[in-house]
Amino acid sequence: MAKVLIIAGSKSDENFVKQALDLFDEWGIEYEFRIFSAHRNLEELIEFLKNLESDFKVIIAVAGLAAALPGVVASMTSLPVIGVPNNVGPLNGIDALLSIVQMPKGVPVGTMGIGNHGMRNAAYFAKRILDLEVSK
Amino acid sequence: MAKVLIIAGSKSDENFVKQALDLFDEWGIEYEFRIFSAHRNLEELIEFLKNLESDFKVIIAVAGLAAALPGVVASMTSLPVIGVPNNVGPLNGIDALLSIVQMPKGVPVGTMGIGNHGMRNAAYFAKRILDLEVSK
Amino acid sequence: MAKVLIIAGSKSDENFVKQALDLFDEWGIEYEFRIFSAHRNLEELIEFLKNLESDFKVIIAVAGLAAALPGVVASMTSLPVIGVPNNVGPLNGIDALLSIVQMPKGVPVGTMGIGNHGMRNAAYFAKRILDLEVSK
Amino acid sequence: MAKVLIIAGSKSDENFVKQALDLFDEWGIEYEFRIFSAHRNLEELIEFLKNLESDFKVIIAVAGLAAALPGVVASMTSLPVIGVPNNVGPLNGIDALLSIVQMPKGVPVGTMGIGNHGMRNAAYFAKRILDLEVSK
Amino acid sequence: MAKVLIIAGSKSDENFVKQALDLFDEWGIEYEFRIFSAHRNLEELIEFLKNLESDFKVIIAVAGLAAALPGVVASMTSLPVIGVPNNVGPLNGIDALLSIVQMPKGVPVGTMGIGNHGMRNAAYFAKRILDLEVSK
Amino acid sequence: MAKVLIIAGSKSDENFVKQALDLFDEWGIEYEFRIFSAHRNLEELIEFLKNLESDFKVIIAVAGLAAALPGVVASMTSLPVIGVPNNVGPLNGIDALLSIVQMPKGVPVGTMGIGNHGMRNAAYFAKRILDLEVSK
Amino acid sequence: MAKVLIIAGSKSDENFVKQALDLFDEWGIEYEFRIFSAHRNLEELIEFLKNLESDFKVIIAVAGLAAALPGVVASMTSLPVIGVPNNVGPLNGIDALLSIVQMPKGVPVGTMGIGNHGMRNAAYFAKRILDLEVSK
Amino acid sequence: MAKVLIIAGSKSDENFVKQALDLFDEWGIEYEFRIFSAHRNLEELIEFLKNLESDFKVIIAVAGLAAALPGVVASMTSLPVIGVPNNVGPLNGIDALLSIVQMPKGVPVGTMGIGNHGMRNAAYFAKRILDLEVSK
Repeated sequence: MAKVLIIAGSKSDENFVKQALDLFDEWGIEYEFRIFSAHRNLEELIEFLKNLESDFKVIIAVAGLAAALPGVVASMTSLPVIGVPNNVGPLNGIDALLSIVQMPKGVPVGTMGIGNHGMRNAAYFAKRILDLEVSK
Repeated sequence: MAKVLIIAGSKSDENFVKQALDLFDEWGIEYEFRIFSAHRNLEELIEFLKNLESDFKVIIAVAGLAAALPGVVASMTSLPVIGVPNNVGPLNGIDALLSIVQMPKGVPVGTMGIGNHGMRNAAYFAKRILDLEVSK
Repeated sequence: MAKVLIIAGSKSDENFVKQALDLFDEWGIEYEFRIFSAHRNLEELIEFLKNLESDFKVIIAVAGLAAALPGVVASMTSLPVIGVPNNVGPLNGIDALLSIVQMPKGVPVGTMGIGNHGMRNAAYFAKRILDLEVSK
Repeated sequence: MAKVLIIAGSKSDENFVKQALDLFDEWGIEYEFRIFSAHRNLEELIEFLKNLESDFKVIIAVAGLAAALPGVVASMTSLPVIGVPNNVGPLNGIDALLSIVQMPKGVPVGTMGIGNHGMRNAAYFAKRILDLEVSK
Repeated sequence: MAKVLIIAGSKSDENFVKQALDLFDEWGIEYEFRIFSAHRNLEELIEFLKNLESDFKVIIAVAGLAAALPGVVASMTSLPVIGVPNNVGPLNGIDALLSIVQMPKGVPVGTMGIGNHGMRNAAYFAKRILDLEVSK
Repeated sequence: MAKVLIIAGSKSDENFVKQALDLFDEWGIEYEFRIFSAHRNLEELIEFLKNLESDFKVIIAVAGLAAALPGVVASMTSLPVIGVPNNVGPLNGIDALLSIVQMPKGVPVGTMGIGNHGMRNAAYFAKRILDLEVSK
Repeated sequence: MAKVLIIAGSKSDENFVKQALDLFDEWGIEYEFRIFSAHRNLEELIEFLKNLESDFKVIIAVAGLAAALPGVVASMTSLPVIGVPNNVGPLNGIDALLSIVQMPKGVPVGTMGIGNHGMRNAAYFAKRILDLEVSK
Repeated sequence: MAKVLIIAGSKSDENFVKQALDLFDEWGIEYEFRIFSAHRNLEELIEFLKNLESDFKVIIAVAGLAAALPGVVASMTSLPVIGVPNNVGPLNGIDALLSIVQMPKGVPVGTMGIGNHGMRNAAYFAKRILDLEVSK
């Protein structure tokens, strides 16, 4: 069953996210990919997060601009949440980076770099967490 | 009955918010002031927003750092939402400004300046909206 | 009669503004669109603002670079003013954002995000204010 | 008669401006110092600028935050306008610098550095312009 | 045995790090705290990382300025590495944030916010990873 | 005889500068255009500035990157110097803006905006200074 | 024998580096060019640096993003190290500049500008150091 | 005889520079410390640089704000020039960093970090260059 949940804020993030999904495919790690906006489907998102199947170990949340998604996901689950700032819009992702990384204490998001490198590193970071189990 | 709802993300924002409350007191405008964090009490916040008494006309949402509160409030109500970036933390509020203002299309937040001027202007902006009614 | 007044700082903003006008058309909200520069036609702009027909409820002001227009409009009317920073020029709109949002106390501008998302959100925000009336 | 007009956006700029006034006193250059906010007394400011006594040769305009004053002054007179960004507020004057310097073509403001050095240099720059006459 | 390894780049980071250690103490999570600079003791650091006792599950790496430590740690181990940018120096930690978060693909660092909130969130994030085991 | 001296830091600035020259041609203002780099021909530049023909009233200095030219010109003459930051290089001219505008007290440069608007405004600003004479 | 060692963080930097190599060829200065990532081949890099042939006088280290390479090289050798920030990624090299230049005391990197100018200047700077010998 | 020449832009930089001088004293390296402003004593500076005693091997140039000094020194000598951005003024030295590091090709400045760490590293970097001789 799927171990990694990937949530992107918008359908337009699909190609961007694919970079991580390809790595999971290559590694044989099962994942589920969903699209929820923290701003457009907040209640559905919360409902979904409250009923997560228990096999998920890590969540990757991807968003651009005033990127609230990763923080909201971190606040609604107790799993480790990896945030990826997408470099969309006129500020090239520095807005998304700050919106994701500058979380108040108690609600951590493990933030990756802006854009393609960060998107792939989210997969690598998830794998490091999943490998903890295997190594036991 | 109260026409303006003010929500701050943290108890430590109280003195900062008081600058707006004093103006409302001076103008005889009734308000309700609540503290909810988008990251620490998200469900309570949503529950509260879904059951707003109908007399509210404007909401002011105040937050610092990765300031998700104003966007979340805007996504859960159809009232005009005014966002105020508090200048807390090492980046002096530029993180909060970008987290509040760079909203994706469909979920607008009317953003004020960083810090004290912005906090007072939130009251002035709310008054402009409330005065629309009176002037009819 | 027109409820929303949209003012852009330059003829070159027309296509940019159209994104909001299309939304108003779709919603059946009447608007008037004018071009005035705070720097090139300041007196005409002031004359125009002092004689606004009373039906206007909201003003949207759009400008790039050292974007003084929204602040000037806010200082000459008592209506709620929504400011939109256009992402023109080598700084991609961060200059316009700061020129619009960092208003001194007493003259508020409800600022939207930089560029296309912000331009559309200006229409959504105006609609939220207009809907206050309808809902009574 | 006074050759230099200094306009500051707020009474709280007085001490800041004094650095330039002291230089003019030392040099025996006559000046007039006025306080007008581009946002709070725009019409008075315009009225004043339209009736300037003909002896003024240079105008220095000082403002912080969303510093619209220098640009507005430049748009209402044909004299050379020197803009000084005051380092007030949480962004330490970078907002004022961009609001003053990034003027659209046709309405130039000769911008000085942020804060004390810039305030004094406004006097030095004004003197360079006034000395052009003397040297004839 | 210790599950969390905390490495700080300099002895002067000790008080800063203590915020996380106090949380681990409170939660009864064992940790080891070491000081190694990526720039002053690189070989010792590498030697230490290559001989890590197998019980460690997570590493927290704390550094300021050109903060190379977290990336270097991530490159020398296969454990999840959490990076914390300390807000020291004239740029208040924005240099450390970018030096930690902008990692090239393949070597991920889960980056926390700048300063105190980020330091505490490193502990919260580590706990989320450790809790994965417990929950099995 | 030429009243305006325009100095650009590099031959590659020629097309950029032409925007101002065209305005001077249109207005019938005589100018001289020279290329000197503050970094590659400093002594020639100084020699040239020390022997300026007396008819020059204003100097426009154009440079990109670590734009030292305008400050150096201001330090070697007593004429008003207008600085224009060219938006070349990966930082899009923000480096040139700060290198030109942040002058220490005593050596003022009247700085224009970054790029095309600023280049044209240099001509408009020069004209305002030249018009002071005519108006006597 | 080779006097200059050039190390780039990634194979994709080759064309960028070639600008410096061409200058060395033109000047008849011998060099060795190697690719090591501080994040992907750290131990090999260290091994290589510890066994440097004694003829090297200067090292040029080139990297983008969270550019740790120049600092790591400076920490493992006693030769002067010149750092070049490559302008790759969504932040256009400002991340690399800060990651290279903001070194803690004791481990200096002589940092060049971002991108092409900086890459060529690394060669010019290396030549200035090599010329010290010749001039004796 | 003195091997290192240190030039600071202003008398107020003396305490700042002392951090490097103390290191040279400790190491027994002779130096000469001079104050010249690129903006206030440019010709004297040039005269001095053209008549440098031949024993100097490295120059350290220290400046704040629109820090032109290091680039000017680099353009007037063929020695390696180390630039140090002092963190004075409202922008905390980011202006000085960009004014020093973003040099056009052909005139390199080996730039250190902003403030105290950078000032000390200038001494360490100078020592690395001087040690090249000794090691022969």
